Amino acid sequence: MRETVIKEQAEVKLRSPVLIEGLPGLGLIGKIATRFLVRQLGAKKLGQLYSPHFPYYVIVNRKGSVRLLCGNFYFWRNDSGQNDLIILTGDSQAQTIEGQYDVANAILDFAKKHGVKAIVTIGGYRKEVEGSPKVVAAATSTELLNRALKEGAMVSPAGNPIVGTAGLLLGLAKFKDMDALSLLAETGGYLPDPKAAKSALEVLLQTLKIKIDLSELDKEIEKSVKIIERMREIEERRERYAQRARRTEEERTTYIS
Amino acid sequence: MRETVIKEQAEVKLRSPVLIEGLPGLGLIGKIATRFLVRQLGAKKLGQLYSPHFPYYVIVNRKGSVRLLCGNFYFWRNDSGQNDLIILTGDSQAQTIEGQYDVANAILDFAKKHGVKAIVTIGGYRKEVEGSPKVVAAATSTELLNRALKEGAMVSPAGNPIVGTAGLLLGLAKFKDMDALSLLAETGGYLPDPKAAKSALEVLLQTLKIKIDLSELDKEIEKSVKIIERMREIEERRERYAQRARRTEEERTTYIS
Amino acid sequence: MRETVIKEQAEVKLRSPVLIEGLPGLGLIGKIATRFLVRQLGAKKLGQLYSPHFPYYVIVNRKGSVRLLCGNFYFWRNDSGQNDLIILTGDSQAQTIEGQYDVANAILDFAKKHGVKAIVTIGGYRKEVEGSPKVVAAATSTELLNRALKEGAMVSPAGNPIVGTAGLLLGLAKFKDMDALSLLAETGGYLPDPKAAKSALEVLLQTLKIKIDLSELDKEIEKSVKIIERMREIEERRERYAQRARRTEEERTTYIS
Amino acid sequence: MRETVIKEQAEVKLRSPVLIEGLPGLGLIGKIATRFLVRQLGAKKLGQLYSPHFPYYVIVNRKGSVRLLCGNFYFWRNDSGQNDLIILTGDSQAQTIEGQYDVANAILDFAKKHGVKAIVTIGGYRKEVEGSPKVVAAATSTELLNRALKEGAMVSPAGNPIVGTAGLLLGLAKFKDMDALSLLAETGGYLPDPKAAKSALEVLLQTLKIKIDLSELDKEIEKSVKIIERMREIEERRERYAQRARRTEEERTTYIS
Repeated sequence: MRETVIKEQAEVKLRSPVLIEGLPGLGLIGKIATRFLVRQLGAKKLGQLYSPHFPYYVIVNRKGSVRLLCGNFYFWRNDSGQNDLIILTGDSQAQTIEGQYDVANAILDFAKKHGVKAIVTIGGYRKEVEGSPKVVAAATSTELLNRALKEGAMVSPAGNPIVGTAGLLLGLAKFKDMDALSLLAETGGYLPDPKAAKSALEVLLQTLKIKIDLSELDKEIEKSVKIIERMREIEERRERYAQRARRTEEERTTYIS
Repeated sequence: MRETVIKEQAEVKLRSPVLIEGLPGLGLIGKIATRFLVRQLGAKKLGQLYSPHFPYYVIVNRKGSVRLLCGNFYFWRNDSGQNDLIILTGDSQAQTIEGQYDVANAILDFAKKHGVKAIVTIGGYRKEVEGSPKVVAAATSTELLNRALKEGAMVSPAGNPIVGTAGLLLGLAKFKDMDALSLLAETGGYLPDPKAAKSALEVLLQTLKIKIDLSELDKEIEKSVKIIERMREIEERRERYAQRARRTEEERTTYIS
Repeated sequence: MRETVIKEQAEVKLRSPVLIEGLPGLGLIGKIATRFLVRQLGAKKLGQLYSPHFPYYVIVNRKGSVRLLCGNFYFWRNDSGQNDLIILTGDSQAQTIEGQYDVANAILDFAKKHGVKAIVTIGGYRKEVEGSPKVVAAATSTELLNRALKEGAMVSPAGNPIVGTAGLLLGLAKFKDMDALSLLAETGGYLPDPKAAKSALEVLLQTLKIKIDLSELDKEIEKSVKIIERMREIEERRERYAQRARRTEEERTTYIS
Repeated sequence: MRETVIKEQAEVKLRSPVLIEGLPGLGLIGKIATRFLVRQLGAKKLGQLYSPHFPYYVIVNRKGSVRLLCGNFYFWRNDSGQNDLIILTGDSQAQTIEGQYDVANAILDFAKKHGVKAIVTIGGYRKEVEGSPKVVAAATSTELLNRALKEGAMVSPAGNPIVGTAGLLLGLAKFKDMDALSLLAETGGYLPDPKAAKSALEVLLQTLKIKIDLSELDKEIEKSVKIIERMREIEERRERYAQRARRTEEERTTYIS
């Protein structure tokens, strides 16, 4: 394995599949969303992407087994709709510039082979969020973009960079005659953000006319909200302490001079 | 797209074209100058250069469409002169050492194919500028250099490095039997510098015997002058404040000892 | 030598050899363990691995000769057991991401060629150690893992990354139909740690049913213990001094305010 | 030019040539020594090495012409001895790990083609030097090493790394059936060090039985000595000033407490 390679684990024929990409990135939004999709839909393994551009370590699984970092493709047969799904999630993005382009191309070649015509990438959009995170969208075709806007997404501001695989898949899609849409949920980006992932999923599922119960995500959101609250408390306490220290210091120097 | 590639958008036959290069660099001088040229001349799209050595993100355009980073070639038929123009501008330079050489070679191969015999690269020369920015020149041929010097450029000081595409095109031109000239306008280099770009354009256009009204650039220059003034004011206020703080501190320590 | 290459120095036919890998890493545990094995077993040279991904310097040997950085393969005929050994030690690991994958693949190809079916990699597991360092294990097969657990190793915690060659050999082994086990001895990791190497060797040798006297390692351990004690003393003295300085400072500021 | 390439400028047949390498490195010793050799011997141009692993800029020469970074091969017919010389000097070393190996291999292939059997690389050995800089030597053959030791060089300490081209040429020479010697002159390494270069040249020339007047180097040495003295004065003044400041500070704090 000296080149990026995709090992197929199932031979399937899919109907006009849409590729949903969610590799680790800002707030882990893409990864949380795609992992949730795979679980809720009961999607099946389709293949694994390995690359020498991924970090050079392996991860120990439960029970002491070992996993090479990889991307995981799943498929789901959409019996009540027109488009089956291919879902890509994984451990990591490529670590070098040329590697990023290489991996994105490998993904597109694989999608092409399976007859994919449309791709949706999911990621984060860095912003201090108040209330419910909004979703900004950008796309290679007006038609795809409009479908997302109709479901509540906002047009991405011009000049906004979409970094990594979520962006390159859009940039490179046209060379393979595919259309692609990126859904980026607002996030502070410091921690895994299931709340933003939920926002992205809402737009995604409505755009694709797929119905899943998202309430399962609420437990993860609750947990993450608690973590954030605890961190905020610590931060406030730290700040109060620092203020007190500054005041003491000021009083002392005032005294001196 | 795993290799640097140029996708042609027009099939044209050009008369002894000169290639003008202005990718982003110091003070964005090359980019400002070539973008201005393209607009004023009404140059047409010739092709786009894509490379896995460019940064791994895409940029959102207006209306939510998406652009892979690229270099843009334009052409302009010079009806009143002997040399048509090919103008290269773009989003970025290659991000790795080997990538820089690769992209420069791809540009030269493309130029060669279109019959280019002479290249002019535009860039910045870092210097604290007072008054009108001067233009320093270096070239692979004495004849080209002398033409620029006659139009007001100064010989570049020896030892001066010309970094990136603007430099490598000169260094590699001889392997393709082309001549190349670099025009570097003096600039502080901290901000986009349309004033320096204007200086470079003046020398360029006179050297090529092309007439364009440059007054359109003056609006951009005015804007940039205002930005710089505002930044200088902020800096001065900050400095006055720091001085006052230092003085207070000195008084206090004097008092103590 | 522009590609990773293994130069064979002996043509041998080995019986179901097991590959033991111990390149430099955390606490130099793998290297200390494999070097000790080679010496105690009187293993013979089998080949050398050179790579343009190793650091770009050479090292002067005794008597002014010079050595290109390399990996060293040794073999040992196990007359009283079923598995001969191939032992890999060396100067360095690959220095780039892609280089790490490339070197690991070259090692696996070489192992495959010699009929290796099982690999054991030796490394360190960062932890503040009290008493005798424990050994954590992870493997690509339950059978191999269980053999190590039976001999005193503990299952590696889930999520633990195994970095570098010691990890990639496990991750990539399945593509070559080999099984692999990693034995990681607990270590602070700051200094060469022969004590941890001994722990790893104990598990390794019992797992492989090979008997070697490990008491020879005790001299190295004694030396390293003395170095660590001396460093701790210096650290404590530094700390006492810093405390005294802080106290003086506090007294003074108390006085002032 | 996407690969390292050597463009030959002369077709010559040399008698058992020895390759002398001196690219920029510690104290610029190799470069100063080889440049001096070329000038004093009146060596002629043999070829130029270009590489995409060199830095991505060009340098302006006198009179505004431009030079791609390169290595320069020269040859010298040694009418009174057995070995002609090929001398390699240049602007830079390769900037990436793999590039270093690639360039060293290109140099060796070129040397091989010209019948080179022995190589001498010149560089620096970091050490605070008092009096005349000594020269330490390492080699791939005892015979070559002994010749240098006989002429006043000392055996390099074991474990000493020889970094870059000067080292890799030795490490890779054996794959091409060549012998190689490295002469490293002691140097502080902060500034160009012609004095150390002279020491290296003395050993080199005696080893090769070539006679050149080295007194021409003395002017450069004088200049460099003056620069160093001036820097030392500045440093001492700075130190005296800092001491005074510390003393004032101590007096004051003593006063307070």
